[in-house]
Amino acid sequence: MDHPVKFAVIGGGSWATAIAKMLCVNLAEIAWYMRNEVAINHIKEYKHNPNYLSSVEFDTSKIRLTSNLDDAIAYADYVIFAIPSAFLSKELEKLTVNLSDKIIFSAIKGIVPETSLIVGEHFHEIYNIPYDNIGVITGPCHAEEVAMERLSYLTIACGDAEKAEIMAENLSGNYIKTKISDDIVGTEYAAMLKNIYAIAAGMAHGLGYGDNFQALLMSNAIREMKKFIRKVHKMKRNINDSAYLGDLLVTGYSIFSRNRMFGNMIGKGYTVKSAMMEMSMVAEGYYATKSAYKLNENLGAKTPIINAVYGILYEGKEPKNVFKKLTDKLD
Amino acid sequence: MDHPVKFAVIGGGSWATAIAKMLCVNLAEIAWYMRNEVAINHIKEYKHNPNYLSSVEFDTSKIRLTSNLDDAIAYADYVIFAIPSAFLSKELEKLTVNLSDKIIFSAIKGIVPETSLIVGEHFHEIYNIPYDNIGVITGPCHAEEVAMERLSYLTIACGDAEKAEIMAENLSGNYIKTKISDDIVGTEYAAMLKNIYAIAAGMAHGLGYGDNFQALLMSNAIREMKKFIRKVHKMKRNINDSAYLGDLLVTGYSIFSRNRMFGNMIGKGYTVKSAMMEMSMVAEGYYATKSAYKLNENLGAKTPIINAVYGILYEGKEPKNVFKKLTDKLD
Repeated sequence: MDHPVKFAVIGGGSWATAIAKMLCVNLAEIAWYMRNEVAINHIKEYKHNPNYLSSVEFDTSKIRLTSNLDDAIAYADYVIFAIPSAFLSKELEKLTVNLSDKIIFSAIKGIVPETSLIVGEHFHEIYNIPYDNIGVITGPCHAEEVAMERLSYLTIACGDAEKAEIMAENLSGNYIKTKISDDIVGTEYAAMLKNIYAIAAGMAHGLGYGDNFQALLMSNAIREMKKFIRKVHKMKRNINDSAYLGDLLVTGYSIFSRNRMFGNMIGKGYTVKSAMMEMSMVAEGYYATKSAYKLNENLGAKTPIINAVYGILYEGKEPKNVFKKLTDKLD
Repeated sequence: MDHPVKFAVIGGGSWATAIAKMLCVNLAEIAWYMRNEVAINHIKEYKHNPNYLSSVEFDTSKIRLTSNLDDAIAYADYVIFAIPSAFLSKELEKLTVNLSDKIIFSAIKGIVPETSLIVGEHFHEIYNIPYDNIGVITGPCHAEEVAMERLSYLTIACGDAEKAEIMAENLSGNYIKTKISDDIVGTEYAAMLKNIYAIAAGMAHGLGYGDNFQALLMSNAIREMKKFIRKVHKMKRNINDSAYLGDLLVTGYSIFSRNRMFGNMIGKGYTVKSAMMEMSMVAEGYYATKSAYKLNENLGAKTPIINAVYGILYEGKEPKNVFKKLTDKLD
């Protein structure tokens, strides 16, 4: 490239806002797309996103804010998608700009419902993006703590190490440390699966299980995740690296986790529908549960925790009974 | 043995009290030794341990309470030690009864300061107990949740699987599930090391690090623990089993953890001495830190977290600076 590398952030939620904040530390200019024009006008006028991480102040002179997806993507070399996976396919339908020469990073933790693919696979299959131009940005990192500038670590995965490095450099800062990885499939599946386990953790808490059981559940969850991911894509990886275990723990244990909160409500007796209505944010793990369960019908990994959450969310099973049976399958 | 197997619990603290409670579910009689005669008299009269887990009611007709260590040990086939490792050696000096035909289980998470050995090794080296007669009882299990009868899982490790089974059966109950293991060295080191990591987690919290860093720290801790234990005793083990990772998590994340609390106070600016005075219980991890650090001078495992905690607790280093440097060594 003969110009400084250009970045676009796609999405107006908390994680998109956190990523925009990180990039603004390092770059003279970024593009930032969000659907919501009211939010865009608010940011332009008040320098804060009114809906998410509203404490973060932006230097708006650096940001090309737009509600036109084409504009944001046409501008950029590196495009970071940070919208809920459930909305990705519909957003992309708007697109008329060619994606094929872009480097696509996913900061989405979930599966695209229309294709049952993780985001990287979706871009590869549907948009013919080569895997060397696809990457993943993953935690352990709650956006809320980025807003507070609390030290956080990101893993940037890409088949092409050089592109991972470029992304990592531009996200790093005083309170953001980065490492790179070549496991784009495994890190993305981990980011998706951990939300299911966070729902399970929340359900257990809501049902009255304590810290002892919670630790046992997480210890089983990481073993289950390892088996699942190995079936999807076998390669040398340490499942205890921060992109897998760390990401699981921050989501399973943190009060900031929407998925844990969603599970907690269901454990406490809310129906799935009323828990979803009660929450103003989408719990990615709800969709991930169905996708993972269906996918595993072919993979055949032993996944008692995913099965339990699926039974509760999609088959109307009683959480109390499902967990009672689950406790006999864990060790 | 031509009689029903007899058990003695040694110790009057919270973990000893929890174990006595578990055994009383399954056995018509147990012996229970504690130093404190006031506590013994209180339990005899009011059926509650006045100092620890005081909500637990005991059927005292089943319990041979004694402040004479010889009596308790002479009575039993299986002896469960659940006193702080710092006091073990001194307690054992009182003993005149022969230990060599006893089956010794350690429910102690620490190193014996006088010999720098873990408890199993101490009994083997100093009392010539064969390893097939030595076992370990380990969590993830906070005693406080046993008192509340919240579902908890124990791992019972012994070189002789039959003895592990006997112990497991007699601890199991409605809210206690057990599994057995043959890794007596690894489980005991894990139980010791996790207290050091819990101190580190508490320090990080006290210093103002958030959930993102905590998850990263635990993900590094389990990898560090694996390296350390492999140097001590190499065998096939899954470090993500509940006796290792589960035990680490329950200690690192729980509000019941004394070690985490101790670390938190130091992170907040207490001196080591004042933090120790403030707490009425012993933080095992304080002693474990020194032992692990010294032991590792020979083992040579890469242990940045243990080194950081050692520097703060024993070399008077400033927590803030030590953690700042530590954050560059983690990933």
